[in-house]
Amino acid sequence: MSFSVSLPVRFQDVDAGGVLFFGRIYDYCHQAYEEFWGSEGVDRAHFFAGAEYLVPIAHSEADYRRPIRHGDRITIRVDVTRVGRASFTLRYHVTGLDPGDLRVEASTVHAFVDRRSMRPIPIPDPLRSILLRHLLREPAPNLSA
Amino acid sequence: MSFSVSLPVRFQDVDAGGVLFFGRIYDYCHQAYEEFWGSEGVDRAHFFAGAEYLVPIAHSEADYRRPIRHGDRITIRVDVTRVGRASFTLRYHVTGLDPGDLRVEASTVHAFVDRRSMRPIPIPDPLRSILLRHLLREPAPNLSA
Amino acid sequence: MSFSVSLPVRFQDVDAGGVLFFGRIYDYCHQAYEEFWGSEGVDRAHFFAGAEYLVPIAHSEADYRRPIRHGDRITIRVDVTRVGRASFTLRYHVTGLDPGDLRVEASTVHAFVDRRSMRPIPIPDPLRSILLRHLLREPAPNLSA
Amino acid sequence: MSFSVSLPVRFQDVDAGGVLFFGRIYDYCHQAYEEFWGSEGVDRAHFFAGAEYLVPIAHSEADYRRPIRHGDRITIRVDVTRVGRASFTLRYHVTGLDPGDLRVEASTVHAFVDRRSMRPIPIPDPLRSILLRHLLREPAPNLSA
Repeated sequence: MSFSVSLPVRFQDVDAGGVLFFGRIYDYCHQAYEEFWGSEGVDRAHFFAGAEYLVPIAHSEADYRRPIRHGDRITIRVDVTRVGRASFTLRYHVTGLDPGDLRVEASTVHAFVDRRSMRPIPIPDPLRSILLRHLLREPAPNLSA
Repeated sequence: MSFSVSLPVRFQDVDAGGVLFFGRIYDYCHQAYEEFWGSEGVDRAHFFAGAEYLVPIAHSEADYRRPIRHGDRITIRVDVTRVGRASFTLRYHVTGLDPGDLRVEASTVHAFVDRRSMRPIPIPDPLRSILLRHLLREPAPNLSA
Repeated sequence: MSFSVSLPVRFQDVDAGGVLFFGRIYDYCHQAYEEFWGSEGVDRAHFFAGAEYLVPIAHSEADYRRPIRHGDRITIRVDVTRVGRASFTLRYHVTGLDPGDLRVEASTVHAFVDRRSMRPIPIPDPLRSILLRHLLREPAPNLSA
Repeated sequence: MSFSVSLPVRFQDVDAGGVLFFGRIYDYCHQAYEEFWGSEGVDRAHFFAGAEYLVPIAHSEADYRRPIRHGDRITIRVDVTRVGRASFTLRYHVTGLDPGDLRVEASTVHAFVDRRSMRPIPIPDPLRSILLRHLLREPAPNLSA
């Protein structure tokens, strides 16, 4: 069970070299991540800034396979590749219109912490259930392969 | 008494057309605005997000005279052009290395409001004093002239 | 004949003060502007970076009426308010879900120039026709009223 | 031989959660990367968009150790950790004012390609010399350790 979102590449996200600035891919992935929660009925304003927990990102990485340009429309498929006690990992598969046209593979690790103490806390059950439903059962292709 | 700051134009702020994305000039102006307060000993974290007041921007505008490109170094001169009871106006004079090489003229209106009620409140006296010291006494050149 | 687009407010566009960073409204307006041309069948990659003309922005301005927060969904209505020989003016009416919930009014002036000489050139006829079809015939409400 | 740059954290780079948006660290690292070349006398506009080569980023990653907030001033130390035939790897050590106050460790892989064919080409000798002078001879601490 995969979640996908399709987004146009904005004029301002392309850099002086004529392709998407490498750091901007994380903006698009995060937008997909927001839509992922939204599609599951999670209130975004609450999740991201109003809850007793915070969910900072502990790690991010991306492999750039082919350039992304202004005018492209990209599709981002979001898979859950790990659900731990207090953290989980997402993988983003970014393609052009053709699903075989892989542009970027990215990954983020998200850790639940208590808003006050900033200490790790277990993933709340309703959110854990959502993550488990999206957990990729197949062996994940190695990001660096 | 003018405040100036010199900033390099970042690679990622240039758009697919090869010049600074028009909206990014406000990022550079805001950075100059932060440095303006910082140069006067105002604590930024407090001023921008920790005080009993908020200072939202009520109006922004910019006239683009000549393109700004990656690799350019720009200088932003900040002048106070109006100090009201609860709001003030800044003007930004953005040039290349040569002070006569005008690229952009911009302006922002800032309004003090109470953080809770979001109602206008008078500019706190210590901040008003700073603004008055930077108030441009000369007739301001018309932005659209 | 108005063009509208609805966009979610991204997490990263909200600043340390908890509301949309004032300069980011221009990113959203530009995205609406891109969609405007796209909805008329204009090829974006060509229009923005591949044609014999460039269309730099000569002026931008915005009036911020009510704050925009993360989790909001905004609607941007794009109207053409002026079509000159070599330039045109757009107005952006940014609201929340309720069309009466005005958040920002913004405006941009766009000038056609020859890519090589950077001199003003007449708006190409096919584009002029599109602009004229969207030209607001009603007296435009005063931006600062 | 390490290169370092110190940068203020901008208001607009902090997200709705109150800390630097995770993707923005790459903007700061890239700014350090630009300054790195600049400090070695390399012309930035040429290097980034005007040469016969392009140097796209093939991989990026970051480990977030402690949050970065608005008002912080961060120091980014840039080390070269690998110089290959056609590509090289940089590591960014991002700290607060105190050099022991580690906030983020990041890394990027840069590949030289011919601008027209987009095929890998050897790193030009003058640039290779610079990279080799900055190559970290010590065993690099494991990013994920």
